Amino acid sequence: MPRGALRWRAVRVHVAFTPAEAAEAPTGIVVDVLRATSTIAQALSSGYGRILCCAEVEEAQALRERLGAVVLAGERRCLPIPGFDLGNSPREFLEPRGDTVVLTTTNGTRALVAATERCERVLAASLLNLDAVVAAAREAAEDVAVFCAGVRGAFTIDDAYCAGRIAERLAGELSDAGAAAVRIAGSFGTPEEGLSASQSARNLVAAGLDEDIDFCARESVLSVVPRVAGVEGRAVELVPY
Amino acid sequence: MPRGALRWRAVRVHVAFTPAEAAEAPTGIVVDVLRATSTIAQALSSGYGRILCCAEVEEAQALRERLGAVVLAGERRCLPIPGFDLGNSPREFLEPRGDTVVLTTTNGTRALVAATERCERVLAASLLNLDAVVAAAREAAEDVAVFCAGVRGAFTIDDAYCAGRIAERLAGELSDAGAAAVRIAGSFGTPEEGLSASQSARNLVAAGLDEDIDFCARESVLSVVPRVAGVEGRAVELVPY
Repeated sequence: MPRGALRWRAVRVHVAFTPAEAAEAPTGIVVDVLRATSTIAQALSSGYGRILCCAEVEEAQALRERLGAVVLAGERRCLPIPGFDLGNSPREFLEPRGDTVVLTTTNGTRALVAATERCERVLAASLLNLDAVVAAAREAAEDVAVFCAGVRGAFTIDDAYCAGRIAERLAGELSDAGAAAVRIAGSFGTPEEGLSASQSARNLVAAGLDEDIDFCARESVLSVVPRVAGVEGRAVELVPY
Repeated sequence: MPRGALRWRAVRVHVAFTPAEAAEAPTGIVVDVLRATSTIAQALSSGYGRILCCAEVEEAQALRERLGAVVLAGERRCLPIPGFDLGNSPREFLEPRGDTVVLTTTNGTRALVAATERCERVLAASLLNLDAVVAAAREAAEDVAVFCAGVRGAFTIDDAYCAGRIAERLAGELSDAGAAAVRIAGSFGTPEEGLSASQSARNLVAAGLDEDIDFCARESVLSVVPRVAGVEGRAVELVPY
């Protein structure tokens, strides 16, 4: 073993605030806290075996045609999709209705695909499973890139807040974006405030889904760590770590 | 005149933390605080008539061939370029040595070009001319997008700090990124701290250019507002507003 390999080096922690930003690291952590990654964590914690995330409604319908017995879930503009079994509220995933969920989520899928292309292992994080994801990333002991899903390619403050909470806990050497995320998170008194400051939260309030914000703002209540097991066609498969 | 046109509406303020992010508004403000937009403000304030910004060293040399008497300025990795008259330190622009500066700045030029493609008017901001730029943007009374130059397409905390100071003063309706920039800026006690927290600052310190950080951290000491007058070939021309 070369001598350098024994030398201690701080893990580097970077945050990509939007999916288009360059970011590469052995460990990727994807955040779409309102609501896709919160829903994924809740679903796997409740007993579903796997989640297939895809970007388009038609892709989700094609997956159901092909796979048969799946729970079809997702939303467009916060609202349920006609013919789907469930929406995209984590509160709808407290009891499993089968083994496989097919979930359409445009921003979340885009971030998961971006991370999968650039990282060896990809985890899905939310506040619900904050401690568990941080512990898994620390155990890997390699550089981390946190990928914020954002909305239509743009920065969102709810994902930046969650990314900052993760970066802070990883206690590594922060990139400029990592340090900024920690500062953004530190500027809020509570997780509810951090999530509520976002346009995503205002959209949920307008759709009458205020309760989802409080639900997703609960910290480290789940021990599940969703990880990307692979890409199936145009869908990303997530299973418990 | 339709009734709606008379109705008061808050100006919207958005921040693009990286040049690749989508951002459109009638007024664009470009920030490359360490050091291109600080240097541009200082040069125009000192009496230079115009600055031509271009991305590549070869483009700058070709412009000198074509235009004749220009002051050739710029840096690569903080250091002067062989055969150039000046570097990219604002402290080198306290006295004019001619009318036209040709300045190579990769990140700054990229942000200026991005803003010019998407905005009706484009201003160059730094802390040196903070009040003046904010006053000019408020006078235009239209939506504002602040474009951070970043480094090689990535987020930098010095530009985010400066963007936050601008967004805060504009007192408009903030996008998620605008609100985040204000929070990042508010997390620092002084402009020196905000700029010094960046990798750009650490690079300047490593190159022995610490003094540039303190120079660029001085607030509202110049009244000049550089604006983009047009694009000349692959160069962006800046003149006083």
